Amino acid sequence: MQRMKQLQVAMLGTGLIGDFYTMSLHAQRSRDRVRIVYSRSPERGAAFRERWGVADSTTDLTAAIEHPDVDVVVVGLPNFMHQEVVGMVAAAGKAVLCTKPLGRNAAEAKVMLDAVEKAGIFAGYLEDLCYTPKTLKAIKAVRSGAVGRLTGGGAIVDLGCHCIEIIRNYIGKGVRPVEVMCHADTLVHPIDDEDNAVALIKFENGAIGQFEVSWTFRGGMDLRDEVAGTNGTIWVNNFLRTGFEMFSAGGSGGYVAEKAESEKGWLFPVGDELVELGYVDMFSDMFRALESGTAPQETFYDGYVVNAVMDAAFRSAKSNRWEPVELFEWRGGVAPRIGAGSKPEMYDGKVVIKREILPDGRHKLILKDPASGDFLDRVVGGTR
Amino acid sequence: MQRMKQLQVAMLGTGLIGDFYTMSLHAQRSRDRVRIVYSRSPERGAAFRERWGVADSTTDLTAAIEHPDVDVVVVGLPNFMHQEVVGMVAAAGKAVLCTKPLGRNAAEAKVMLDAVEKAGIFAGYLEDLCYTPKTLKAIKAVRSGAVGRLTGGGAIVDLGCHCIEIIRNYIGKGVRPVEVMCHADTLVHPIDDEDNAVALIKFENGAIGQFEVSWTFRGGMDLRDEVAGTNGTIWVNNFLRTGFEMFSAGGSGGYVAEKAESEKGWLFPVGDELVELGYVDMFSDMFRALESGTAPQETFYDGYVVNAVMDAAFRSAKSNRWEPVELFEWRGGVAPRIGAGSKPEMYDGKVVIKREILPDGRHKLILKDPASGDFLDRVVGGTR
Amino acid sequence: MQRMKQLQVAMLGTGLIGDFYTMSLHAQRSRDRVRIVYSRSPERGAAFRERWGVADSTTDLTAAIEHPDVDVVVVGLPNFMHQEVVGMVAAAGKAVLCTKPLGRNAAEAKVMLDAVEKAGIFAGYLEDLCYTPKTLKAIKAVRSGAVGRLTGGGAIVDLGCHCIEIIRNYIGKGVRPVEVMCHADTLVHPIDDEDNAVALIKFENGAIGQFEVSWTFRGGMDLRDEVAGTNGTIWVNNFLRTGFEMFSAGGSGGYVAEKAESEKGWLFPVGDELVELGYVDMFSDMFRALESGTAPQETFYDGYVVNAVMDAAFRSAKSNRWEPVELFEWRGGVAPRIGAGSKPEMYDGKVVIKREILPDGRHKLILKDPASGDFLDRVVGGTR
Amino acid sequence: MQRMKQLQVAMLGTGLIGDFYTMSLHAQRSRDRVRIVYSRSPERGAAFRERWGVADSTTDLTAAIEHPDVDVVVVGLPNFMHQEVVGMVAAAGKAVLCTKPLGRNAAEAKVMLDAVEKAGIFAGYLEDLCYTPKTLKAIKAVRSGAVGRLTGGGAIVDLGCHCIEIIRNYIGKGVRPVEVMCHADTLVHPIDDEDNAVALIKFENGAIGQFEVSWTFRGGMDLRDEVAGTNGTIWVNNFLRTGFEMFSAGGSGGYVAEKAESEKGWLFPVGDELVELGYVDMFSDMFRALESGTAPQETFYDGYVVNAVMDAAFRSAKSNRWEPVELFEWRGGVAPRIGAGSKPEMYDGKVVIKREILPDGRHKLILKDPASGDFLDRVVGGTR
Repeated sequence: MQRMKQLQVAMLGTGLIGDFYTMSLHAQRSRDRVRIVYSRSPERGAAFRERWGVADSTTDLTAAIEHPDVDVVVVGLPNFMHQEVVGMVAAAGKAVLCTKPLGRNAAEAKVMLDAVEKAGIFAGYLEDLCYTPKTLKAIKAVRSGAVGRLTGGGAIVDLGCHCIEIIRNYIGKGVRPVEVMCHADTLVHPIDDEDNAVALIKFENGAIGQFEVSWTFRGGMDLRDEVAGTNGTIWVNNFLRTGFEMFSAGGSGGYVAEKAESEKGWLFPVGDELVELGYVDMFSDMFRALESGTAPQETFYDGYVVNAVMDAAFRSAKSNRWEPVELFEWRGGVAPRIGAGSKPEMYDGKVVIKREILPDGRHKLILKDPASGDFLDRVVGGTR
Repeated sequence: MQRMKQLQVAMLGTGLIGDFYTMSLHAQRSRDRVRIVYSRSPERGAAFRERWGVADSTTDLTAAIEHPDVDVVVVGLPNFMHQEVVGMVAAAGKAVLCTKPLGRNAAEAKVMLDAVEKAGIFAGYLEDLCYTPKTLKAIKAVRSGAVGRLTGGGAIVDLGCHCIEIIRNYIGKGVRPVEVMCHADTLVHPIDDEDNAVALIKFENGAIGQFEVSWTFRGGMDLRDEVAGTNGTIWVNNFLRTGFEMFSAGGSGGYVAEKAESEKGWLFPVGDELVELGYVDMFSDMFRALESGTAPQETFYDGYVVNAVMDAAFRSAKSNRWEPVELFEWRGGVAPRIGAGSKPEMYDGKVVIKREILPDGRHKLILKDPASGDFLDRVVGGTR
Repeated sequence: MQRMKQLQVAMLGTGLIGDFYTMSLHAQRSRDRVRIVYSRSPERGAAFRERWGVADSTTDLTAAIEHPDVDVVVVGLPNFMHQEVVGMVAAAGKAVLCTKPLGRNAAEAKVMLDAVEKAGIFAGYLEDLCYTPKTLKAIKAVRSGAVGRLTGGGAIVDLGCHCIEIIRNYIGKGVRPVEVMCHADTLVHPIDDEDNAVALIKFENGAIGQFEVSWTFRGGMDLRDEVAGTNGTIWVNNFLRTGFEMFSAGGSGGYVAEKAESEKGWLFPVGDELVELGYVDMFSDMFRALESGTAPQETFYDGYVVNAVMDAAFRSAKSNRWEPVELFEWRGGVAPRIGAGSKPEMYDGKVVIKREILPDGRHKLILKDPASGDFLDRVVGGTR
Repeated sequence: MQRMKQLQVAMLGTGLIGDFYTMSLHAQRSRDRVRIVYSRSPERGAAFRERWGVADSTTDLTAAIEHPDVDVVVVGLPNFMHQEVVGMVAAAGKAVLCTKPLGRNAAEAKVMLDAVEKAGIFAGYLEDLCYTPKTLKAIKAVRSGAVGRLTGGGAIVDLGCHCIEIIRNYIGKGVRPVEVMCHADTLVHPIDDEDNAVALIKFENGAIGQFEVSWTFRGGMDLRDEVAGTNGTIWVNNFLRTGFEMFSAGGSGGYVAEKAESEKGWLFPVGDELVELGYVDMFSDMFRALESGTAPQETFYDGYVVNAVMDAAFRSAKSNRWEPVELFEWRGGVAPRIGAGSKPEMYDGKVVIKREILPDGRHKLILKDPASGDFLDRVVGGTR
């Protein structure tokens, strides 16, 4: 039987980022596990252990890093600790993954880079937003030539370090950033720090990267990439509407979008086809159910009911009538009528069927008079 | 150290569905593996083994099912073989997962259901489209009451069996389907079989499920769910635009959408937040790189460059000027100017700057005369 | 000088539909006017006259119809009056336009049809939703062959009569509807009438029209057309998102979409290009301002400011610095800083910078401590 | 009878902009008309006259401006002529409307502003993109406080002068622009002029306007506005997808969006409700048909057919069967079956039912064997 390496992780930090990292490391049928967690506080360490089924916790940073089972150390600590802690991991000779931003400035980042290179250890920069399935697919499309040569790329999200690396992935990591122009201001919050910024990055080949960061966006999380090329355009909305739109003038000669009928024009690629079509979650559910001795979401009885409905559909397609669904037994319960027991909204003794807002702010009510059976419209003030 | 069970799979069938299932079973950092593959053809079996790194292949169905390492048998064979093969797996006492549709009709499905229940084995129905992250999240929202009581649900995709089970998941599996009305016709393809159908399913509580199936859709893959409730509406487009839109009149008292600012009104939930934010792909890339001794997509050098760009941005925000990006060394190559070496489209001795299609089908050209430096418009025939 | 015929209208009815019709008849720079309005109630007639600048009102139906200035009679009365009133207009020999539905049933509609044909008068059926700019453009695209032969068309809105005629316009008015299958039910409102229905219409050539009507839709106004053809697909959302999406496999040989780069693939036509680009509203504003002796929205001073900003932009593009906007005088007022006088949301003595909803319903606060200047995250309960 | 003033226009220029302006001036039931057109070329003048039904054309600029019937002069000439021609119109004491940009620089614009102010004539700046129905509605929403105080606004289209004035309308014309930072470059076209630019405008109150202009956009016409406020967000796509999305945290106390169920959260306003619902085009069609003695798109016979279909639907809802549509006569023709006479795509003796592009670029064919009646999948190379 095939032996498969399981990686054991020391998670440093129990904040939200430690939670997100651990959820991701344990996601679906992952073979890897967090082995030990470090927190300054024994209580937070214990709670984290409990929350994620982690074997050990410790308040001793060195003990976590040097734990003999641990292959990889994940640094999820505040920025000011990155330099020191990466140095400790380098000294221990373990692989290290560090959250973003790497340092508080380039000088710190340079010290960390030197440390891991000198120690010869594996070192990864945990820039999650460069790995969204849509961004990965979009970068692949750019590399395949689907949009021609890039003239510009932009990213919008709440932290500049995300944006910069997203842009570098699109423009190409081999294209040197040469100059930056930035405007930052404190527009909303009465604090000393900027809450809005917009910046331009000039690259060696003339391409312009543009990013906007804001702590004042209203309406959810604004996480968008926009790419302009000589032969096409890419718009990715990773979060709010989860869209991915690409125009390609064609000519790349390679793969552009799955299940499209064409390789040019406007295309709507899918980030991760297997995920979006449900295959990954399906097998996770099946195997989790099998291991835990419970029923999966989709059972053979469900498959049987589907067949029974299809049988009725085939009969109906021939008979041109409603056909009964014949089931040898019904394992669900009894469902009352949808409207049973509901109280209608009343207005002036009539049932309110629908309420619309008119251009002048008043409301139009469509009413039914239970006595006469008549319908009538009534325009009323807008306070509900 | 924590012991983690790895499930070993016998994959029956080497067609496209076998490929998709195997890719999904091996996805990301999965601990599970296909152990042996069955195909009627030794060549196809060998190619499959090679393609997916599977240890063994066989042309003997019984050998695949009864292989001592195998915990789970996945049936990815043509429909007419399901009944017989599920019977064989039941006899072998292994867990079985069967592709959709379960049987060719309810009678066959009933035989399979009886077989697995009598044998007491785990049996899962592989209906992938009920497991798309957006559908799972939408079903969860429905269960939490976000859209009130369901009055109807619909699904559009190319096979009726998918639609029926998607609808059942929304309406609730405990709500009995009682009658079906179906219209099917052969509209496009000169074959005896239907290429278009639309059907209605009446449920016990009055809810109506509606599905459309078509083998003649133009423009990609049309995979949509629509749900109407007394307090809200859900529209899911799983594939073509990958959108998820929900209106909730509120009052469910539970979780509705992540990172929203409100729990009512139009909301745009994300199928699987960890996936969409890139965490899962990020750790997969890191650990794959670590195991294979290669560099990950995001290295410490990348983190350093980001810091250097941010340093320049902070300086620029203060100086109000373009500031250089200072790098101790540049590890990328040299990138030529974007337009270098490109040949412009010419028209009548002028450079074509832009081409637009006019309402009458003619093209408007914006031209630049290289001699005079003047710009001019020219309207020409539409044949490019 | 060119003489232009102005049509004078008698508006019968002062309800919402009379308001909408009159606003439309008087829209933009329209030369036509409502001359007289009929209402049973003198008060409602007077209010309507006042509201829309109509010369006369009357409670005498015959007087309104037979008014000597009136060219066209618009019937905006309750359904049960249509047959009688259309008969009166026919007798008077005036042109008649009647709101939808024409009759309460086909027998009534037949009587009206006979009346106008016998009288030889102009008679129009006021089915506004067949005239939405997107529907008109989509029908034109269908006629030009952009989506091939239609296999089906559907419409969703709150009244069946709208849907039926929208579908007929797509399928082709020369294609005979032969059979109907309808399911209607009272799902939500405790009334005797249906509040939800879905129906299929079979046309002679095999095409299927499908419509859904609902008085229980939540989230605004659902007004969508969907068209399936052998070579393409059309999705129109007239109201809620105002989108228009078309896939064409090409080959129609005619005009498909303005300003597209291609005539096949996914296209995004615009309903009425002149309207959407602002030309129509621009001239209406200009001429209205000219006639009323007021300033238009866009004045020469505005044009001057734009030039001054462009001058600064050109200087900046050369100097690579921020350049001042030089204005010979500033005619606007003085604007205070955006955040001036605003009170921040506080939490535990810290400023709340941002608030996000977590998957478990709790809220994550990003806080700034005004004393130390530090940022911190805090996860709190979800009750705001 | 009500007298309605008709404005007579002198159109200067017969290029595309003259065509668009004239189409708009004559749109729908407009009472205004172009009376005379000026062109340097008698042939172009005559063609324009013919094209738009204009009474006169001339090659004499003064004659056009001073024509006794003319109330308003529209300047649609090249930029370098604006200053001189506006001076001539001012001297003639007529109202003047000038296309964008007003001058080639602020100094020219100042001369024109002085000329019209000294002459005391009406002067309008023809900035059409500030008048798109969506932009007008969005500006109204901003003014009503729906998104709070604006922190930034941006516009994307192909000319900077459009963007600047769109931004000023959002930010508020009373807020002084103080500084500009611009980056412009020639990235694609081998010409001396910039083909891409991005600029920031600082306003007195701290708000930042941002615009991007490009002559190299691929995929149609990119015409978008984005507005960020302290209490909301607006995204308008005027052309490519014609969307309008607004988030409002509420509290404006005024009208936000028609037919919404709420006044906060994500809302989808409609630019011009009467236009989008079809009312304006409906009456235009009716009155045009009446005047020209032709049938309108929607006749009483159509209304009758709708009633007959509804009758069948009501019968079917009761009988639960397909019910025939009973028509006293059928005025349409005879329509052959959709698939009649079509030749299927064949592959290896089988009918090709569907063709999908796989991730590796190969095509998956779903085939039907006419002999056996079996369906089969076949994966083939991607060259169609």
